[in-house]
Amino acid sequence: MDYYSKQINQLVEALSLLPGIGSKTAQRLAFHILNMPKQDVERLASAISSARNNVRYCKHCYTLTDDDVCPICKDQSRNHKIIMVVENTRDLVAYEKTGKFEGVYHVLHGAISPMLGIGPDDIKLKELMQRLQGDIEEVIIATNSSLEGETTAVYLSKLIKPTGIKVTRIASGVPVGGDLEYIDEVTLLRALEGRTEL
Amino acid sequence: MDYYSKQINQLVEALSLLPGIGSKTAQRLAFHILNMPKQDVERLASAISSARNNVRYCKHCYTLTDDDVCPICKDQSRNHKIIMVVENTRDLVAYEKTGKFEGVYHVLHGAISPMLGIGPDDIKLKELMQRLQGDIEEVIIATNSSLEGETTAVYLSKLIKPTGIKVTRIASGVPVGGDLEYIDEVTLLRALEGRTEL
Repeated sequence: MDYYSKQINQLVEALSLLPGIGSKTAQRLAFHILNMPKQDVERLASAISSARNNVRYCKHCYTLTDDDVCPICKDQSRNHKIIMVVENTRDLVAYEKTGKFEGVYHVLHGAISPMLGIGPDDIKLKELMQRLQGDIEEVIIATNSSLEGETTAVYLSKLIKPTGIKVTRIASGVPVGGDLEYIDEVTLLRALEGRTEL
Repeated sequence: MDYYSKQINQLVEALSLLPGIGSKTAQRLAFHILNMPKQDVERLASAISSARNNVRYCKHCYTLTDDDVCPICKDQSRNHKIIMVVENTRDLVAYEKTGKFEGVYHVLHGAISPMLGIGPDDIKLKELMQRLQGDIEEVIIATNSSLEGETTAVYLSKLIKPTGIKVTRIASGVPVGGDLEYIDEVTLLRALEGRTEL
């Protein structure tokens, strides 16, 4: 329905592709953008394309970052022998915010899900196994406590155990079915302290 | 808090400036954008800046459009002697969707609001009065039935009456306090049919 002009329609359609943005919200956002100062609009547009073009995976831990190596992997004061495995960069940030974890991370970018057809090769598992050939003392599995997260944790522990490296899982202080990034920091810390060997 | 990389932070901050987008939603959108195909991201970024740079006011009715004159004002099959006054382009589209109004529009881009310090000079009122020097039979005031919309309607009718042009107000089929763009088409039509002379 072309009730709006072509440019406005294109903007509304592009915004509707974002998750959680329906057509009414997209229209509201579009008209807000049309009334924003030009430099704010340019900043938004360039932030979008520049982030997409410049953000890449850290070559060690695969978190999303601006450089080849992320600040955490670069930080020599952290314990590089302890690796916490998380599903995505937002989960990494959730643990970073507790300020108490001194090891490094490995970001899988997903979890094994037979339902969605996501297998071990579709997440950064091979890359983790390669890192484990170095001098590693412990792998803490901090995938979500969802079905997919648990499946991934079991799969990972079976894979790592033969290497002799200690494998732990964050405690079930994390509510079952919950999503790591939305949990309060105290609960996250309790889950870290109560981790058990798999 | 710089838990994310600079580029991701800039993207999250830019998205947070949009209405109704809090910091959690902005993060979710940002990570979605980072995972979108590059050409979709480019389309979104260019739709944003191109709409902002190219959309302008129609020089007759002041709706937002791509050309100097909007398709409705260009359409010679419409009755250019009947002008419906609305607060914004979304309200215009709400009436266009009924498919039954054959006149043209005038978009005020706001309503008089002493509370917010918006006076008659801050909306496209002068421009409307200029149009009324032409051959006009009727002005239908279709501002929202909010306090500001009603204030604007009363102000407008007092301004137009001395010119001898018929002034009408859409009927109160529109729920008091409601916002035109969210109302169903049947109610909008009833309000149009039941309009009364001011």
